[in-house]
Amino acid sequence: MKYKIPFNKPFIAGSELSYIKQAVDFGKISGDGAFSEKCHHFFETHYKIEKAFLTTSCTDALEMAAILLNIQPGDEVIAPSFTFVSTVNAFVLRGAKIVFADSKVEEPNIDETKIEALISSKTKAIIVVHYAGVACNMEKITAIAQQHNLFVVEDAAQAIESTYTFSDGTKKYLGSIGALASFSFHETKNVISGEGGMLAVNDTSFIKRAEIIREKGTNRTAFFRGEIDKYGWEDIGSSFLPSEITAAFLFAQLEQIKIIQQKRKALWHHYFQLLLPLANAGKISLPFIPNYAENNAHIFYIICNSSQARRNLISYLKEKGIYTAFHYQSLHKSAFYLKTNSLKTLPNCERYSDCLLRLPMYYELLPEEVIYVSEEITKFLK
Amino acid sequence: MKYKIPFNKPFIAGSELSYIKQAVDFGKISGDGAFSEKCHHFFETHYKIEKAFLTTSCTDALEMAAILLNIQPGDEVIAPSFTFVSTVNAFVLRGAKIVFADSKVEEPNIDETKIEALISSKTKAIIVVHYAGVACNMEKITAIAQQHNLFVVEDAAQAIESTYTFSDGTKKYLGSIGALASFSFHETKNVISGEGGMLAVNDTSFIKRAEIIREKGTNRTAFFRGEIDKYGWEDIGSSFLPSEITAAFLFAQLEQIKIIQQKRKALWHHYFQLLLPLANAGKISLPFIPNYAENNAHIFYIICNSSQARRNLISYLKEKGIYTAFHYQSLHKSAFYLKTNSLKTLPNCERYSDCLLRLPMYYELLPEEVIYVSEEITKFLK
Repeated sequence: MKYKIPFNKPFIAGSELSYIKQAVDFGKISGDGAFSEKCHHFFETHYKIEKAFLTTSCTDALEMAAILLNIQPGDEVIAPSFTFVSTVNAFVLRGAKIVFADSKVEEPNIDETKIEALISSKTKAIIVVHYAGVACNMEKITAIAQQHNLFVVEDAAQAIESTYTFSDGTKKYLGSIGALASFSFHETKNVISGEGGMLAVNDTSFIKRAEIIREKGTNRTAFFRGEIDKYGWEDIGSSFLPSEITAAFLFAQLEQIKIIQQKRKALWHHYFQLLLPLANAGKISLPFIPNYAENNAHIFYIICNSSQARRNLISYLKEKGIYTAFHYQSLHKSAFYLKTNSLKTLPNCERYSDCLLRLPMYYELLPEEVIYVSEEITKFLK
Repeated sequence: MKYKIPFNKPFIAGSELSYIKQAVDFGKISGDGAFSEKCHHFFETHYKIEKAFLTTSCTDALEMAAILLNIQPGDEVIAPSFTFVSTVNAFVLRGAKIVFADSKVEEPNIDETKIEALISSKTKAIIVVHYAGVACNMEKITAIAQQHNLFVVEDAAQAIESTYTFSDGTKKYLGSIGALASFSFHETKNVISGEGGMLAVNDTSFIKRAEIIREKGTNRTAFFRGEIDKYGWEDIGSSFLPSEITAAFLFAQLEQIKIIQQKRKALWHHYFQLLLPLANAGKISLPFIPNYAENNAHIFYIICNSSQARRNLISYLKEKGIYTAFHYQSLHKSAFYLKTNSLKTLPNCERYSDCLLRLPMYYELLPEEVIYVSEEITKFLK
């Protein structure tokens, strides 16, 4: 076997352990210490997020969002079906009914032209997921939300450093556009802390309650700022904050983000160029990047012509030492959803569930490995 | 000033960073890797817990418990009012109505003789909190629960290494007795990972669902064991698992638990002996440890004769460089609880809220510092 290429290798910046040591030596390893503050500052200044709150996972950030939006049993939220279960489970935990929207024909993101038909008097929010770090059509989605008085939540789990350009030329980072947004630092992401996430609050009216909800429903944050002399039970909430160990690890990564992105983007474009002839020959489809989107090379995927073709390709590549992975099962067809909802068809979503294949993509991946993977795919499908 | 004595200093075992490095070098830093497994194994073998699940916090472990007990809006749970907000907020998040029980006269734990009067047809569970690592009366509480077909959840946040001895002589570790139990590894605890917790499942009928709920409501755990060929959305749930970075840190601590406990217990008994004359003189009360309880020296507290006496003592000790801390505000008098419940009086709980004072207690505390603190308290109160 020429190479053995895993699907993912976590990126290590180099200073993670010395930063963790600093946190330990400083004697503060519970949450919201100096490193959490550094991470918050990075996100607020670099991405123009109004207020950043590190969380223990992107799931937990979405749960904070659901609490902040005051989701009540029976409220509806519109979300794509081609996404990770947490995108919607965070809202189901508060009693929401999920109304699934289909993906687009040309890319897995939510089809904004199908959203309005799903809005009812019970709809509270539209949850968008920037799949593979490629922006949804935020201008249109924001306009729909404004018109119907709905909140937009961006699940930006995969979308650090990606941008959206509005028709007037304004460019914004993903996660800074919706009222609320969530990020993930799970080890599979571009920037990591093992497990970890962040809630971005862009609608400033949510900041005060976000502080309380994140501190187990208490006003402890105000207490630590010296604004009150004891803290008490004010609201529902949870322990959403990660330790300083986690924050120190993450900060080491954030310092290297430009280097990480440069490398990943080069690998992404390399794959794209090498696989273009196969796409032009109709053997696969390649990622479609709309004009408004600048993506972050989080995932490089191809779309096979059938589920069987994907299965065969996965097996062939595995024999060649190349590990690839399909992605989400359609949530609208899941056992849990069908317990309380009837089966409907979302053909584009189902196609991505059946035919999308993610190729190896990580910082340490070598250009010759990209060539090898692309050549083997070409050899098998040609 | 003779000394400067903080209220708490996080214990560091020494091998935390090298274990984190091992996890990083191994290339697996998301949750449920080798170090999580080592921690689970430690708890299951050492404390005879049926199944251990690391979580990102004790709060999250309690939230898992509330989901596993299938708490529905309107269900009631009985809990002490003298506790941390998460003990009950985890159940409020699922819609539970909290019915608060008073503490005992002689110690802050729930008064088991007052529980039965609080049981209604809607009661689902009794949540006990082993305050300061001192066991509640588990034999009586278990009997009440069995008689009324209720679940017992132990909030063992503070109770690692503590035991309860049944009247037949059987000794069990706290957290291994209730159907479910939660632990905390917050930096203020005996054994720490900055932020962190664990759910102990002792009623084995909960294990399968616990795996699903902890993995965002998916059957991913069964998938990783090779039992199914793809995983899907099965249930509500969250991302409860901590990273391997957190687990590696924790495991380094667990290896030193006997040494930690030996030291803390010596300090605890030293305080007790030195302050006994003051207690005998009626100036303060000392912790009461029932015969059935072997405590873990998590907290050393005294009870002042009034709220004003406590305030004065805190100020005096602060001038002497000694940092002490009161503890919980009574939850039954909190702003949040009173929004939907009427004010009632729980006199013992309120006394602990007003008069209990925690003294410095940590691994590095020196015997001469214990003497100094005790002498200053004696000097001021005599």
